[in-house]
Amino acid sequence: MNDDFFMLQALQEAQKALAEEEIPIGAVVVFENRIIGRGYNQTERLRDVTAHAEMLALSSAANHVGNKYLSDCTLYVTIEPCVMCAGASYWAQLGQVVFGADEPKVGFRRFGQLLHPRTRLRSGVRAEECAGLMRDFFNLKRK
Amino acid sequence: MNDDFFMLQALQEAQKALAEEEIPIGAVVVFENRIIGRGYNQTERLRDVTAHAEMLALSSAANHVGNKYLSDCTLYVTIEPCVMCAGASYWAQLGQVVFGADEPKVGFRRFGQLLHPRTRLRSGVRAEECAGLMRDFFNLKRK
Repeated sequence: MNDDFFMLQALQEAQKALAEEEIPIGAVVVFENRIIGRGYNQTERLRDVTAHAEMLALSSAANHVGNKYLSDCTLYVTIEPCVMCAGASYWAQLGQVVFGADEPKVGFRRFGQLLHPRTRLRSGVRAEECAGLMRDFFNLKRK
Repeated sequence: MNDDFFMLQALQEAQKALAEEEIPIGAVVVFENRIIGRGYNQTERLRDVTAHAEMLALSSAANHVGNKYLSDCTLYVTIEPCVMCAGASYWAQLGQVVFGADEPKVGFRRFGQLLHPRTRLRSGVRAEECAGLMRDFFNLKRK
Protein backbone atom coordinates (compact mmCIF):
# COMPACT_ATOMS: atom_id res chain seq x y z
CA MET A 1 0.00 0.00 0.00
CA ASN A 2 1.31 3.41 -0.94
CA ASP A 3 0.40 7.10 -0.94
CA ASP A 4 -1.84 6.59 -3.93
CA PHE A 5 -3.85 3.92 -2.13
CA PHE A 6 -4.34 5.95 1.03
CA MET A 7 -5.27 9.08 -0.90
CA LEU A 8 -7.98 7.02 -2.53
CA GLN A 9 -9.27 6.27 0.97
CA ALA A 10 -9.23 10.00 1.77
CA LEU A 11 -11.15 10.58 -1.47
CA GLN A 12 -13.76 8.10 -0.31
CA GLU A 13 -14.15 10.18 2.85
CA ALA A 14 -14.51 13.29 0.67
CA GLN A 15 -17.29 11.52 -1.24
CA LYS A 16 -19.18 11.12 2.03
CA ALA A 17 -18.94 14.87 2.58
CA LEU A 18 -20.21 15.45 -0.95
CA ALA A 19 -23.18 13.15 -0.33
CA GLU A 20 -24.07 15.32 2.68
CA GLU A 21 -23.65 18.55 0.68
CA GLU A 22 -20.55 19.51 2.59
CA ILE A 23 -17.44 20.91 0.91
CA PRO A 24 -15.90 17.60 -0.23
CA ILE A 25 -12.67 17.18 1.70
CA GLY A 26 -11.65 13.90 3.28
CA ALA A 27 -8.77 12.64 5.38
CA VAL A 28 -7.30 9.48 6.86
CA VAL A 29 -4.51 8.94 9.37
CA VAL A 30 -2.24 5.96 8.75
CA PHE A 31 0.07 4.14 11.15
CA GLU A 32 2.16 1.18 9.97
CA ASN A 33 0.11 0.81 6.81
CA ARG A 34 -3.18 0.75 8.71
CA ILE A 35 -5.85 3.45 8.80
CA ILE A 36 -6.37 4.46 12.43
CA GLY A 37 -8.50 7.56 11.88
CA ARG A 38 -10.93 8.85 9.28
CA GLY A 39 -12.76 12.11 8.83
CA TYR A 40 -14.68 14.17 6.33
CA ASN A 41 -15.68 17.79 6.45
CA GLN A 42 -18.82 18.26 8.57
CA THR A 43 -18.79 21.98 9.29
CA GLU A 44 -22.35 22.46 8.02
CA ARG A 45 -23.98 19.49 9.69
CA LEU A 46 -22.27 20.11 13.02
CA ARG A 47 -22.40 23.90 12.57
CA ASP A 48 -18.86 23.98 13.82
CA VAL A 49 -15.89 25.52 12.02
CA THR A 50 -13.54 23.13 13.80
CA ALA A 51 -15.12 20.05 12.15
CA HIS A 52 -12.68 19.92 9.24
CA ALA A 53 -11.81 16.48 7.84
CA GLU A 54 -8.26 16.64 9.18
CA MET A 55 -9.33 17.63 12.71
CA LEU A 56 -11.83 14.79 12.93
CA ALA A 57 -9.31 12.30 11.54
CA LEU A 58 -6.59 13.46 13.98
CA SER A 59 -8.93 13.28 16.99
CA SER A 60 -10.15 9.88 15.91
CA ALA A 61 -6.59 8.57 15.44
CA ALA A 62 -5.44 9.95 18.81
CA ASN A 63 -8.45 8.35 20.45
CA HIS A 64 -7.66 5.05 18.75
CA VAL A 65 -4.04 4.91 19.92
CA GLY A 66 -4.64 6.63 23.27
CA ASN A 67 -1.90 9.14 22.56
CA LYS A 68 -2.17 12.73 21.42
CA TYR A 69 1.21 12.53 19.66
CA LEU A 70 1.13 10.93 16.24
CA SER A 71 4.82 11.13 15.38
CA ASP A 72 4.87 7.91 13.38
CA CYS A 73 1.65 8.60 11.51
CA THR A 74 0.84 10.10 8.14
CA LEU A 75 -2.15 12.34 7.53
CA TYR A 76 -3.61 11.99 4.03
CA VAL A 77 -5.96 14.78 3.04
CA THR A 78 -7.47 15.56 -0.34
CA ILE A 79 -6.85 19.34 -0.21
CA GLU A 80 -3.99 21.39 1.22
CA PRO A 81 -4.77 21.92 4.92
CA CYS A 82 -5.76 25.32 6.28
CA VAL A 83 -3.94 27.17 9.06
CA MET A 84 -6.09 25.57 11.77
CA CYS A 85 -5.42 22.04 10.56
CA ALA A 86 -1.72 22.73 10.02
CA GLY A 87 -1.65 24.00 13.61
CA ALA A 88 -3.30 20.79 14.85
CA SER A 89 -0.75 18.76 12.86
CA TYR A 90 2.00 20.75 14.54
CA TRP A 91 0.74 19.86 18.00
CA ALA A 92 0.32 16.20 17.06
CA GLN A 93 3.93 16.22 15.77
CA LEU A 94 2.79 14.25 12.76
CA GLY A 95 5.41 12.24 10.94
CA GLN A 96 4.11 13.18 7.53
CA VAL A 97 1.40 15.16 5.79
CA VAL A 98 0.41 14.12 2.28
CA PHE A 99 -2.16 16.18 0.45
CA GLY A 100 -3.79 16.06 -2.96
CA ALA A 101 -4.59 19.42 -4.53
CA ASP A 102 -3.14 22.83 -3.67
CA GLU A 103 -5.35 25.42 -1.99
CA PRO A 104 -3.59 28.71 -2.75
CA LYS A 105 -6.24 30.91 -1.08
CA VAL A 106 -6.59 29.40 2.38
CA GLY A 107 -3.89 26.72 2.38
CA PHE A 108 -1.36 26.92 5.19
CA ARG A 109 1.72 27.25 2.96
CA ARG A 110 0.94 30.92 2.35
CA PHE A 111 1.89 31.57 5.95
CA GLY A 112 5.27 29.87 6.02
CA GLN A 113 6.49 26.95 8.04
CA LEU A 114 3.49 26.07 10.21
CA LEU A 115 4.07 22.32 10.41
CA HIS A 116 6.32 20.75 13.04
CA PRO A 117 9.98 20.76 11.98
CA ARG A 118 9.95 16.96 12.01
CA THR A 119 6.89 16.66 9.74
CA ARG A 120 7.63 15.69 6.15
CA LEU A 121 5.34 17.11 3.47
CA ARG A 122 4.26 15.69 0.14
CA SER A 123 1.70 17.18 -2.22
CA GLY A 124 0.12 16.45 -5.57
CA VAL A 125 -1.08 12.89 -4.90
CA ARG A 126 -4.20 12.23 -7.02
CA ALA A 127 -4.42 16.03 -7.21
CA GLU A 128 -6.69 16.06 -10.24
CA GLU A 129 -9.34 13.84 -8.62
CA CYS A 130 -9.14 15.80 -5.35
CA ALA A 131 -9.52 19.15 -7.09
CA GLY A 132 -12.19 17.79 -9.43
CA LEU A 133 -14.43 16.86 -6.54
CA MET A 134 -14.23 20.44 -5.24
CA ARG A 135 -14.92 21.88 -8.71
CA ASP A 136 -17.98 19.67 -9.14
CA PHE A 137 -19.30 20.74 -5.75
CA PHE A 138 -18.94 24.46 -6.38
CA ASN A 139 -20.33 24.18 -9.92
CA LEU A 140 -23.39 22.41 -8.52
CA LYS A 141 -23.75 25.04 -5.79
CA ARG A 142 -23.77 27.84 -8.36
CA LYS A 143 -26.72 26.32 -10.24
CA MET B 1 -19.40 44.21 32.33
CA ASN B 2 -16.13 44.76 30.54
CA ASP B 3 -13.04 42.99 29.23
CA ASP B 4 -11.66 42.76 32.72
CA PHE B 5 -14.76 40.97 33.97
CA PHE B 6 -14.82 38.44 31.15
CA MET B 7 -11.10 37.75 31.41
CA LEU B 8 -11.72 36.87 35.04
CA GLN B 9 -14.23 34.30 33.80
CA ALA B 10 -11.62 32.92 31.41
CA LEU B 11 -9.20 32.77 34.36
CA GLN B 12 -11.75 30.72 36.27
CA GLU B 13 -11.77 28.27 33.37
CA ALA B 14 -7.97 28.19 33.49
CA GLN B 15 -8.19 27.32 37.18
CA LYS B 16 -10.26 24.27 36.27
CA ALA B 17 -7.48 23.17 33.91
CA LEU B 18 -4.93 23.68 36.70
CA ALA B 19 -7.02 21.56 39.08
CA GLU B 20 -6.87 18.75 36.52
CA GLU B 21 -3.09 19.19 36.03
CA GLU B 22 -3.57 20.53 32.53
CA ILE B 23 -1.65 23.55 31.21
CA PRO B 24 -3.82 26.30 32.74
CA ILE B 25 -5.45 28.12 29.85
CA GLY B 26 -9.10 29.11 29.86
CA ALA B 27 -11.49 30.79 27.45
CA VAL B 28 -15.02 32.15 27.20
CA VAL B 29 -17.04 33.37 24.23
CA VAL B 30 -19.28 36.37 24.83
CA PHE B 31 -22.27 37.61 22.84
CA GLU B 32 -24.16 40.72 23.91
CA ASN B 33 -22.58 40.68 27.34
CA ARG B 34 -23.50 37.05 27.95
CA ILE B 35 -21.17 34.05 28.07
CA ILE B 36 -22.35 31.57 25.45
CA GLY B 37 -19.36 29.22 25.48
CA ARG B 38 -16.68 28.13 27.93
CA GLY B 39 -13.62 25.95 27.66
CA TYR B 40 -10.41 25.01 29.37
CA ASN B 41 -7.44 23.13 28.08
CA GLN B 42 -8.07 19.37 28.22
CA THR B 43 -5.40 18.02 25.88
CA GLU B 44 -4.08 15.56 28.49
CA ARG B 45 -7.37 14.22 29.75
CA LEU B 46 -8.83 13.82 26.28
CA ARG B 47 -5.44 12.87 24.79
CA ASP B 48 -6.29 15.16 21.93
CA VAL B 49 -4.19 18.08 20.69
CA THR B 50 -7.30 19.80 19.36
CA ALA B 51 -8.81 20.17 22.86
CA HIS B 52 -7.44 23.65 23.50
CA ALA B 53 -9.53 26.00 25.63
CA GLU B 54 -10.37 28.22 22.65
CA MET B 55 -11.46 25.32 20.43
CA LEU B 56 -13.79 23.95 23.09
CA ALA B 57 -15.21 27.40 23.83
CA LEU B 58 -15.78 28.12 20.12
CA SER B 59 -17.48 24.76 19.51
CA SER B 60 -19.60 25.22 22.59
CA ALA B 61 -20.64 28.75 21.55
CA ALA B 62 -21.47 27.67 17.98
CA ASN B 63 -23.52 24.82 19.37
CA HIS B 64 -25.34 27.23 21.69
CA VAL B 65 -26.33 29.68 18.96
CA GLY B 66 -26.75 27.04 16.21
CA ASN B 67 -24.44 28.96 13.91
CA LYS B 68 -20.83 28.31 13.04
CA TYR B 69 -20.20 32.01 12.42
CA LEU B 70 -19.59 34.07 15.53
CA SER B 71 -19.17 37.48 13.93
CA ASP B 72 -20.69 39.41 16.81
CA CYS B 73 -18.89 37.49 19.50
CA THR B 74 -15.71 38.06 21.48
CA LEU B 75 -13.35 35.28 22.46
CA TYR B 76 -11.57 35.90 25.76
CA VAL B 77 -8.59 33.67 26.38
CA THR B 78 -5.96 33.87 29.09
CA ILE B 79 -2.94 33.27 26.80
CA GLU B 80 -2.23 34.37 23.22
CA PRO B 81 -3.82 31.75 20.95
CA CYS B 82 -1.72 29.31 18.91
CA VAL B 83 -1.86 28.95 15.13
CA MET B 84 -4.57 26.27 15.32
CA CYS B 85 -6.85 28.39 17.50
CA ALA B 86 -6.20 31.52 15.44
CA GLY B 87 -7.19 29.47 12.39
CA ALA B 88 -10.42 28.39 14.07
CA SER B 89 -11.13 32.04 14.96
CA TYR B 90 -10.60 32.93 11.32
CA TRP B 91 -13.21 30.42 10.16
CA ALA B 92 -15.67 31.56 12.83
CA GLN B 93 -15.13 35.15 11.64
CA LEU B 94 -14.99 36.25 15.25
CA GLY B 95 -15.80 39.87 15.98
CA GLN B 96 -13.02 40.20 18.51
CA VAL B 97 -10.26 38.28 20.22
CA VAL B 98 -9.07 39.49 23.63
CA PHE B 99 -6.19 37.69 25.27
CA GLY B 100 -4.28 38.05 28.51
CA ALA B 101 -0.57 37.25 28.34
CA ASP B 102 1.66 37.08 25.27
CA GLU B 103 2.99 33.71 24.13
CA PRO B 104 6.01 34.64 22.03
CA LYS B 105 7.05 31.02 21.32
CA VAL B 106 3.89 29.43 19.96
CA GLY B 107 1.51 32.40 19.76
CA PHE B 108 -0.07 33.05 16.38
CA ARG B 109 1.29 36.59 15.98
CA ARG B 110 4.72 35.24 15.00
CA PHE B 111 3.16 34.08 11.74
CA GLY B 112 1.53 37.31 10.65
CA GLN B 113 -2.09 38.11 10.07
CA LEU B 114 -3.85 34.81 10.74
CA LEU B 115 -7.10 36.23 12.13
CA HIS B 116 -10.00 37.22 9.89
CA PRO B 117 -9.60 40.78 8.54
CA ARG B 118 -12.77 41.77 10.41
CA THR B 119 -11.56 40.45 13.78
CA ARG B 120 -10.39 43.11 16.21
CA LEU B 121 -7.57 42.16 18.59
CA ARG B 122 -6.80 43.28 22.11
CA SER B 123 -4.09 41.93 24.38
CA GLY B 124 -2.71 42.47 27.87
CA VAL B 125 -5.96 42.15 29.84
CA ARG B 126 -5.11 40.77 33.32
CA ALA B 127 -1.88 39.65 31.69
CA GLU B 128 -0.02 39.26 34.96
CA GLU B 129 -2.60 36.89 36.47
CA CYS B 130 -2.83 34.90 33.23
CA ALA B 131 0.94 34.52 32.94
CA GLY B 132 1.30 33.86 36.68
CA LEU B 133 -0.98 30.82 36.47
CA MET B 134 1.22 29.37 33.72
CA ARG B 135 4.39 30.10 35.71
CA ASP B 136 3.00 28.41 38.81
CA PHE B 137 2.06 25.35 36.76
CA PHE B 138 5.45 24.93 35.14
CA ASN B 139 7.30 25.61 38.41
CA LEU B 140 5.24 22.88 40.07
CA LYS B 141 5.88 20.51 37.18
CA ARG B 142 9.63 20.99 37.51
CA LYS B 143 9.58 19.92 41.17
